[in-house]
Amino acid sequence: MGRLSRDFAVTRVTVDDTGVHTDTRADTVTVEEPLEIRVGGPTLTTTMRTPGHDIELLHGFLYGEGIITAAADVSTARYCAGATGPDGMNTYNVLDVDLTPGVAAPGPELLRLTPTSSACGVCGTSSIDQILRRSERPLRTFPLDPALILSLPDRMRAEQKQFRRTGGIHAAGAFTLDGELIVVREDIGRHNAADKVIGHLLLAERLPADDLILVMSSRASFELVQKAVTAGFGALVAVSAASSLAVELARESGMALTGFTRGQRFNLYSGELLSGS
Amino acid sequence: MGRLSRDFAVTRVTVDDTGVHTDTRADTVTVEEPLEIRVGGPTLTTTMRTPGHDIELLHGFLYGEGIITAAADVSTARYCAGATGPDGMNTYNVLDVDLTPGVAAPGPELLRLTPTSSACGVCGTSSIDQILRRSERPLRTFPLDPALILSLPDRMRAEQKQFRRTGGIHAAGAFTLDGELIVVREDIGRHNAADKVIGHLLLAERLPADDLILVMSSRASFELVQKAVTAGFGALVAVSAASSLAVELARESGMALTGFTRGQRFNLYSGELLSGS
Repeated sequence: MGRLSRDFAVTRVTVDDTGVHTDTRADTVTVEEPLEIRVGGPTLTTTMRTPGHDIELLHGFLYGEGIITAAADVSTARYCAGATGPDGMNTYNVLDVDLTPGVAAPGPELLRLTPTSSACGVCGTSSIDQILRRSERPLRTFPLDPALILSLPDRMRAEQKQFRRTGGIHAAGAFTLDGELIVVREDIGRHNAADKVIGHLLLAERLPADDLILVMSSRASFELVQKAVTAGFGALVAVSAASSLAVELARESGMALTGFTRGQRFNLYSGELLSGS
Repeated sequence: MGRLSRDFAVTRVTVDDTGVHTDTRADTVTVEEPLEIRVGGPTLTTTMRTPGHDIELLHGFLYGEGIITAAADVSTARYCAGATGPDGMNTYNVLDVDLTPGVAAPGPELLRLTPTSSACGVCGTSSIDQILRRSERPLRTFPLDPALILSLPDRMRAEQKQFRRTGGIHAAGAFTLDGELIVVREDIGRHNAADKVIGHLLLAERLPADDLILVMSSRASFELVQKAVTAGFGALVAVSAASSLAVELARESGMALTGFTRGQRFNLYSGELLSGS
């Protein structure tokens, strides 16, 4: 891809007792570019994302919005040939998608929805009801092994190639209950990283993910819990804090949720620990 | 408001050499609820936000989208009286806005736009051009005092009441070149925190903010640089990383941009240091 990070000349400034010191050299920065998703012609959404795994991102996004339920619901997905930048090269920033005949196109109300506000009703409770209705099957839950949970963020970080280069990118990962890594994806947007992982699992026919744990390098917002519940994950492990609506949705759906999962400790907001642990 | 944070019974899990220890008690979590913004009837957007300063959020959002340019462009803004939750109480999650006669209503293309994708063209360059055209005046830039820049994140953190309680909320703050604090706002979404600060400045008739520095507790995404440039800030100070498009937009607009602004050092991605420093 070659577009995941870019080098800029950056001045590092240090202030200490002896004064101000500067050192200008190339520094690696995470790439952020818009991805426009068109379904059957009209634009469904434009999201800022780190290029790469765009087809997975597309599938995860459409799945999370309830537009598709299986990979077969997408007939074709390709970069728009006419989307060229000032240099005359394809920007690879526009995806044209055709749904399989029989799959309903997104209605006008979805054309207003977005990754950050998808499926949000006006009141938290009705919104939660709506999501629980959408995930028709009950979640298969499992008790958490504390030592395993604590090991997952470190194991994911070992796979975060872009984070090591830039220090400025989120990651999502799917792990089995035995701690086996299925997939890790990075993106400047946490919701995009989750969509890439979910899209990967959809394309691999691994959904619902009821025997998997979703690990996020970020905090757990409502939106991320919503994506995890819709994909059927049994647990969401977040490195940072959880929001109130995230805790409520996890509890109502029965999905396990941990936050501040760092070092030797984590907060268990929802779910059970393995007995004997 | 009483809705900025909520207490949940949370189990703290610690794993050490002697085994797994659990301790269940009340823990404070940042509240996240949807805010629906209706302009002249139809819904313009729904954003997940931390309740509080919603009128500032509204003004900052409409300003950033180019729908209003002054506080007087909003005729009325009030919580929808009919938006009640299951308990029959107003949710305070729907804002009805009427624009002053003569101010153009948002067009259909804006109805698709969102906080995360606002004003994003398909290609980064055209998108940047679009934003630079929108901010008609050139930015008034100023050289940065390194010691002042390094002091700002700590001074903002001292005002982050919710962060101290929950550890899970972003903040945006506006400071003068003398280091005087104008306003700090917190929100679970970094873009909402920025919109609240910009809305505050708009309502206080302090825009363009060309004598102010915007400080963000988060990373600097394209979207945040876009909001800062549109509001006319001379500098954006980010505690975490900057993205490639953020650096490009800052450089093209002439706005100073720092990242990883922590402890004794920061990266200067755009702008100049005070001479003699």
